[in-house]
Amino acid sequence: MSDLKSKFLEVYNVLKSELLNDPAFDFTDNSRQWVDRMLDYNVPGGKLNRGLSVIDSYKLLKGEELTDEEVFLACALGWCIEWLQAYFLVLDDIMDNSQTRRGQPCWFRLPKVGLIAANDGIVLRNHIPRILKKHFKGKPYYVELLDLFNEVEFQTACGQMIDLITTIEGEKDLAKYSIPLHHRIVQYKTAYYSFYLPVACALLMAGEDLEKHTDVKNILVEMGTYFQVQASFTARIVVDDYLDCFGHPDVIGKIGTDIEDYKCSWLVVKAMELANEEQKKSLYENYGKEDPACVAKVKEIYNTLNLQGVFDEYESKSYEKLISSIEAHPSKAVQAVLKSFLGKIYKRQK
Amino acid sequence: MSDLKSKFLEVYNVLKSELLNDPAFDFTDNSRQWVDRMLDYNVPGGKLNRGLSVIDSYKLLKGEELTDEEVFLACALGWCIEWLQAYFLVLDDIMDNSQTRRGQPCWFRLPKVGLIAANDGIVLRNHIPRILKKHFKGKPYYVELLDLFNEVEFQTACGQMIDLITTIEGEKDLAKYSIPLHHRIVQYKTAYYSFYLPVACALLMAGEDLEKHTDVKNILVEMGTYFQVQASFTARIVVDDYLDCFGHPDVIGKIGTDIEDYKCSWLVVKAMELANEEQKKSLYENYGKEDPACVAKVKEIYNTLNLQGVFDEYESKSYEKLISSIEAHPSKAVQAVLKSFLGKIYKRQK
Repeated sequence: MSDLKSKFLEVYNVLKSELLNDPAFDFTDNSRQWVDRMLDYNVPGGKLNRGLSVIDSYKLLKGEELTDEEVFLACALGWCIEWLQAYFLVLDDIMDNSQTRRGQPCWFRLPKVGLIAANDGIVLRNHIPRILKKHFKGKPYYVELLDLFNEVEFQTACGQMIDLITTIEGEKDLAKYSIPLHHRIVQYKTAYYSFYLPVACALLMAGEDLEKHTDVKNILVEMGTYFQVQASFTARIVVDDYLDCFGHPDVIGKIGTDIEDYKCSWLVVKAMELANEEQKKSLYENYGKEDPACVAKVKEIYNTLNLQGVFDEYESKSYEKLISSIEAHPSKAVQAVLKSFLGKIYKRQK
Repeated sequence: MSDLKSKFLEVYNVLKSELLNDPAFDFTDNSRQWVDRMLDYNVPGGKLNRGLSVIDSYKLLKGEELTDEEVFLACALGWCIEWLQAYFLVLDDIMDNSQTRRGQPCWFRLPKVGLIAANDGIVLRNHIPRILKKHFKGKPYYVELLDLFNEVEFQTACGQMIDLITTIEGEKDLAKYSIPLHHRIVQYKTAYYSFYLPVACALLMAGEDLEKHTDVKNILVEMGTYFQVQASFTARIVVDDYLDCFGHPDVIGKIGTDIEDYKCSWLVVKAMELANEEQKKSLYENYGKEDPACVAKVKEIYNTLNLQGVFDEYESKSYEKLISSIEAHPSKAVQAVLKSFLGKIYKRQK
């Protein structure tokens, strides 16, 4: 494990211990144990990329060694993002009636938990302002930090909403699916909190005014959108079986069942754009069905239409566009932050 | 309808319209309609006591006529509390698998809604900081307002947690139920947001520092606790059938099934305190069962033990204690606010 990651995990234990002794609530022994177990089960088990990227980004922005206090604060913000993610995942799993998450049963599937998990999601969410108040109240950027987390959570909930209402039973119509709709879902549901939020936290710590960084926001949201298309693409076509078994559940999540779940994915939108009448008819008939034969037909059409080639072209265009946006940015430090994200995502370009 | 109430409802429409056009999210037509319908279904249908009491309290604190802007702002804060309540109720109904709420099917029971309701609860919650940011950012008390809503939501979620984990199947043991546990559940789950939050909002608008008003908080939390005992008592013993049919669902809620649900209610705790061995045995055998014969046996014990008399004594002691705490408060305006709450609750004392 890297030094950074072990430091990051150390901070998790500090934050957890503070939350379990929060004076704003008079814990019973049972409730303290419950929260302890619930946190360990749901918060630190992912890849922690979102959280760790706050510290990386802040280092690049500051351009010199961080003090111990700065490392701690950047880790605390990183953990707030991981707490946010845990909150969304716990509730998403209930809504999607999922079985597993990060290689273990979903929290709500545990016999003693059940729908108490919905309230646990809320508790996770409520830990964020507790952490922020304890460690950031008094900082000049405290209000901006609260506003930022509030706005990003709002956007994520709205993205989740359009994703959910788009796939309501009885209103299914592939003709409603389009690239702008797909883009909107991915942008709000994933990109803001996964890509923009870590950098925005680092910018606030560095004393920056977020209002002046809408270009940074746009670039990161664009990157997050590309990332999601890539993930769903990779999961579905290139190494389907491999990723279904070994892909990181953070990324793969429900992507593995986009076809069955009638999701407005980039793949189905592109397929509908390129399909002839017969293929369209087949997509209408087979998309959104549990039957493996139907799923196979959809995949066959994806292959026939050479979505691999379409994706390759989308990928290089998107990469070029991002590179030129990044290089147009006046600050070299901000450029370094954005390029570090880009490098992690566009692996095949390196 | 009173002038105040119609003004309050006018402000609801303004806030709703702002939320449906929030620039932080790029609504689709479908999602805008969804939120519109979801808000109308879940937010304004209660008695609105919590929300209205912000305006009443602020008037008493200010001691003179409010300007139009002040009325609007006090209404907006009142609605934030109603939004908070709606968020809790939508999620509680899912967790409790309830059928109806405020005289209509629970939101998640609507065929097109289902578990999307969990995300709608989250959206309701996220509307609060949107309203606060739009109308209070720049006010000197903006940060305190955010911290207040965050803290009270945290306390409510924690209260809900101890309520839920106290009644987990398989760990049922009446011996664990006690007045301190009951007090803790009610205090956190209900009293903070229903009694303290409206007054705290009014105090902030009046320029007060909440840190200096812990006595006000304690008095209101005590009132909220009494109120909940009264409600559960009234629902169960005095006019059981009447309230089950006609009682206001805001108050009655799940109280009507405390016995079936194995809730740690004031009644069962007092009954266990006063019961002889035989009665205790019967409570152990019959509490927490769906069977109406079991419920009837529990009620019979409540009657035999004269919990009515015990309650009457608790009521007058609680009233005396609150009156003397209130009269010890240095500010006449604050006294007026607290007495107005007291007057609404202790109706039989008047």
